[in-house]
Amino acid sequence: MLRIGLLGCGRIGQVHARSIGALGEARVTAVADAMPAAAGALAASTGAEVREVEAILSAPDIDAVVIGTPTDAHFGQIMGAAKAGKAIFCEKPVDMSVDNIRACMEAVSAAGVPFLTGFNRRFDPNFAALRARLKQGAIGAVELVSITSRDPAPPPVSYIERSGGLFRDMMIHDFDMARFLMGEEFVRLHAMGSALVDPAIGEAGDVDTAAVILTTASGRICQISNSRRAAYGYDQRIEVHGERGMLRAENQLETTVELATEAGFARDPAQHFFLERYEAAYLAEMRAFVEAVTSGSQPDPGIEDGLRAQMLADAATQSRQTGQPVDLPAA
Amino acid sequence: MLRIGLLGCGRIGQVHARSIGALGEARVTAVADAMPAAAGALAASTGAEVREVEAILSAPDIDAVVIGTPTDAHFGQIMGAAKAGKAIFCEKPVDMSVDNIRACMEAVSAAGVPFLTGFNRRFDPNFAALRARLKQGAIGAVELVSITSRDPAPPPVSYIERSGGLFRDMMIHDFDMARFLMGEEFVRLHAMGSALVDPAIGEAGDVDTAAVILTTASGRICQISNSRRAAYGYDQRIEVHGERGMLRAENQLETTVELATEAGFARDPAQHFFLERYEAAYLAEMRAFVEAVTSGSQPDPGIEDGLRAQMLADAATQSRQTGQPVDLPAA
Amino acid sequence: MLRIGLLGCGRIGQVHARSIGALGEARVTAVADAMPAAAGALAASTGAEVREVEAILSAPDIDAVVIGTPTDAHFGQIMGAAKAGKAIFCEKPVDMSVDNIRACMEAVSAAGVPFLTGFNRRFDPNFAALRARLKQGAIGAVELVSITSRDPAPPPVSYIERSGGLFRDMMIHDFDMARFLMGEEFVRLHAMGSALVDPAIGEAGDVDTAAVILTTASGRICQISNSRRAAYGYDQRIEVHGERGMLRAENQLETTVELATEAGFARDPAQHFFLERYEAAYLAEMRAFVEAVTSGSQPDPGIEDGLRAQMLADAATQSRQTGQPVDLPAA
Amino acid sequence: MLRIGLLGCGRIGQVHARSIGALGEARVTAVADAMPAAAGALAASTGAEVREVEAILSAPDIDAVVIGTPTDAHFGQIMGAAKAGKAIFCEKPVDMSVDNIRACMEAVSAAGVPFLTGFNRRFDPNFAALRARLKQGAIGAVELVSITSRDPAPPPVSYIERSGGLFRDMMIHDFDMARFLMGEEFVRLHAMGSALVDPAIGEAGDVDTAAVILTTASGRICQISNSRRAAYGYDQRIEVHGERGMLRAENQLETTVELATEAGFARDPAQHFFLERYEAAYLAEMRAFVEAVTSGSQPDPGIEDGLRAQMLADAATQSRQTGQPVDLPAA
Repeated sequence: MLRIGLLGCGRIGQVHARSIGALGEARVTAVADAMPAAAGALAASTGAEVREVEAILSAPDIDAVVIGTPTDAHFGQIMGAAKAGKAIFCEKPVDMSVDNIRACMEAVSAAGVPFLTGFNRRFDPNFAALRARLKQGAIGAVELVSITSRDPAPPPVSYIERSGGLFRDMMIHDFDMARFLMGEEFVRLHAMGSALVDPAIGEAGDVDTAAVILTTASGRICQISNSRRAAYGYDQRIEVHGERGMLRAENQLETTVELATEAGFARDPAQHFFLERYEAAYLAEMRAFVEAVTSGSQPDPGIEDGLRAQMLADAATQSRQTGQPVDLPAA
Repeated sequence: MLRIGLLGCGRIGQVHARSIGALGEARVTAVADAMPAAAGALAASTGAEVREVEAILSAPDIDAVVIGTPTDAHFGQIMGAAKAGKAIFCEKPVDMSVDNIRACMEAVSAAGVPFLTGFNRRFDPNFAALRARLKQGAIGAVELVSITSRDPAPPPVSYIERSGGLFRDMMIHDFDMARFLMGEEFVRLHAMGSALVDPAIGEAGDVDTAAVILTTASGRICQISNSRRAAYGYDQRIEVHGERGMLRAENQLETTVELATEAGFARDPAQHFFLERYEAAYLAEMRAFVEAVTSGSQPDPGIEDGLRAQMLADAATQSRQTGQPVDLPAA
Repeated sequence: MLRIGLLGCGRIGQVHARSIGALGEARVTAVADAMPAAAGALAASTGAEVREVEAILSAPDIDAVVIGTPTDAHFGQIMGAAKAGKAIFCEKPVDMSVDNIRACMEAVSAAGVPFLTGFNRRFDPNFAALRARLKQGAIGAVELVSITSRDPAPPPVSYIERSGGLFRDMMIHDFDMARFLMGEEFVRLHAMGSALVDPAIGEAGDVDTAAVILTTASGRICQISNSRRAAYGYDQRIEVHGERGMLRAENQLETTVELATEAGFARDPAQHFFLERYEAAYLAEMRAFVEAVTSGSQPDPGIEDGLRAQMLADAATQSRQTGQPVDLPAA
Repeated sequence: MLRIGLLGCGRIGQVHARSIGALGEARVTAVADAMPAAAGALAASTGAEVREVEAILSAPDIDAVVIGTPTDAHFGQIMGAAKAGKAIFCEKPVDMSVDNIRACMEAVSAAGVPFLTGFNRRFDPNFAALRARLKQGAIGAVELVSITSRDPAPPPVSYIERSGGLFRDMMIHDFDMARFLMGEEFVRLHAMGSALVDPAIGEAGDVDTAAVILTTASGRICQISNSRRAAYGYDQRIEVHGERGMLRAENQLETTVELATEAGFARDPAQHFFLERYEAAYLAEMRAFVEAVTSGSQPDPGIEDGLRAQMLADAATQSRQTGQPVDLPAA
């Protein structure tokens, strides 16, 4: 039974607590949150104790930490957990600074602790099944990856302002997915973006609609597009074109019901809420973490995946601002 | 170049004339119609001569007749054409009387002339492809056939009154399709029907909504349902369940466009008009006739298929009226 | 917090225990099973006590019983629970004997206890959404209901022999769904069936492939077909045709992944296992029971729905055996 | 009856001759081709005369010319036809040189003759319906256009070498479609491309896999991707994302048949051949030309559309070669 300390009891922390409860092979032993009420509520529903972060990091009855705190708290918690020899599950992004992530990588590596970066979409049953077939050679060599992500509605501008921008906050998921599907690092990137959904987003220096092209050393191409708004739900699609065909994963609609009338054939919107859309993914992600830690293997995606995605997000941010393509540095 | 005499210059006659023109291996040499204006118009557009029916039947420059006249004229024209040694393409139903169809069968057989019964749906590219895969064993032995046919809107009651009723006028196509897909004759049938779309149809002694179950000697089952109304277009679907899977053919929608909005995902209605829906089928049907006649082989479906379908329609009419199942006589 | 006694700790009992645990508003207080090991295991995972059935029925700390025992044990347990004033959730079929169900109805009615018959499919999110739109008038008056149910593979013949036959064991779900969708009782039914999947099923006096037509007093029509085998998964589809259009619910496939190759476009099989397919339905069903009991309202579907479905299953069994339609008695 | 001179009797010339024949409001009066056999064959099947190009351009019995000759012959023929006052239908690309197209524009404008550039895809019923709904405001303001085009298989390298490269030969259709859908000119473009399908294409200096991002002055974004190979058929999809939703058009599959087996649900490949895929588009395109000329209005897309698409293709070619984005000049 893996004993877990949960840092951060907000929405995502609650999701992870629920997953841990459903697994049966791990339990939440302690929780911490800057807001005592949040920590207390999650402690009550999980049977865990409320503790301070530092107490959790140094506790002998804690095997692993799940970090779901605000991004700027990650660095200190990762460094502390690594030093204390705890296995680490950290929500994305690992940190806004590539240098900080490198420092974490070194600490984690030196400590030899397992580390999983919370790119939940890799664990979505649809995307995971697509990736598995790709690996089995269903379409031969990959040539062109296309990723479409659209949120149902934009977040408040106050959120946008401290988010690091669309490329670091939203498209980072797609950069990780692109690497996951492509199987080869990107060497060059060009990003374009605009504030079309809400002018206030533009005034805050960010974009809400963006498209990026990336290429690898062998010439494979990836295109990603994002919008902060989709009237028809949370739009999450991937498509991979290869030498022998194409694999794609479509959206999950709310039900399978179809209505046919004079106007034609109508189906439901796509599932709207990310917690509903990725419910199975969050559970599978926690299972992968617990199994890796329990079996002594390295979880996947690891901290280097967090670093690579952040580097792509930084490069896209720069490319969009300068209007020029960016050559990607080696890791 | 097969020289064809076209009997009947109404809507279906015009369709056949167009098909003949598109084939290149046959031509309309003469046309006949009770309404001189109709005959004249079709003669003008095809370059054919207007003649009397009898003159066409006895003409040495006519190799084959295509019969698209009202049903009560079929019998005399078939008997005359058979006697004259002409190849015969006859619209369904061959005749409302099974006895008359038997008499035609004998005449056609005695004369040794090719005969095609115009069950156009067998030639629909979708249904023909489904049947071809069935024959190739894609799903193994057939166990359960389901056929759904719904017209976009009911015909006028004046048409209903002289139509022979839903089973003979509309479901006869489905009875033929059922035989085409099943590959074994039916031995028992039960029909239920109601006038739900238009009470006037019920007052005329007919039904507008109906369902039939049929079984074969080996126990295979077929279910057919019909409605005289479908808000979303001309609904034509078939499904065959077998030991190793299922084959089905869906409707053809007007376009491939999909609109996604807050309300969900919307596609077009099904193609509404039978001439649009079965345009390719009518052409393929005429090609099959011309090729069979030209090559000296027997067209398929033949006159016996017309007889069998009529017997099923008669039995369904009787079953619906008595409320009892009907055992089907040998042909 | 509703305190539940769970009778029967087999596969379905475990499903219900899991649902109760997930709801938060009820708990499993005691469990009983003829096999001590099964009871002990479920007690351990739920924190419940193992007790005898009689002890549960008479216990003051039990508010409701969930009956998931073999069908022949239902009668005594329902009578006992009603007498003890417990709310009752009973798996379908309530009993194989219509007379027994009537006796239970009287006892339940006399005791005034809430009763839910476990027709889980009514609670499937897809079917429930379809029914809700029907009720909202999305397609106007219902004219024709079509239900298709196919199991992935037949059960062992030993199961078939004590199952009551396909109509009572399998199609009973579809009879309930037909009533749920039609909103009017059926007055006449004709069933045909064959053993096509496995001759041993025929030798056991049962069928594995069947089709039924039913009509209501106002002439509405329903067609149901069943097969004990579907290569492509657990096939569960409904379609309702009405004056202004059609509503249908398709199967849930395993993932949304599509593979396009030279052979065409390929999607996954339908979900294979009924516990996976109806996972959400079982949870919603238990929620409906707990909410009805807690709020003092009558759960739906009630015991009369169990009776009506059983009567249709009996009639279909008789119709298939005699080859004749059956007029349905008033309840 | 519009009297047409057809220049070029190859594959595309034959398509146009067939369309003209089907329209009824125009006829092929004369044909010309560098290969006498080709001209003779098309003359025979259309009832036209074989003439020299110059004779057609100066003939008083010719109202319009349809130019389907090799691209390098277009310039002289357009200049000649404009001078002679003939209406002009010219296959894309108008010319490989933007300067030449400008010269043609001036000549056409000076002569006041109608001119249609043969961007057939605008006339595809699916894409045309999508565009019509866009214009009707179905999704509000356009924000992001995505276009995917993949040929079933690459052409021979000998063709590639004189094609002007992928951007001018293949993606030019998508550039026109992008302008058609966006409704605003593009101001900046970045193209990436690789030879992944066939190294010989790379050795010839061209690419076979490419992706382009374009932006407009108001910040709207378009992404286009091309591949010279698609195992599953001729892949032609468009998607437009806007403030109130998304419109997309999917591929047309060969039939509507679906096969369900243990492996899942399988549909046909996409239609493979461009003449089959765009059969209806070619007919609608010729109808639009004939109607515009007959009614004295300017056909759409005109010669400026040919120019704009060529400028985008040139810019993409340059961007791919330099690795830098290109700012687009005013027309």
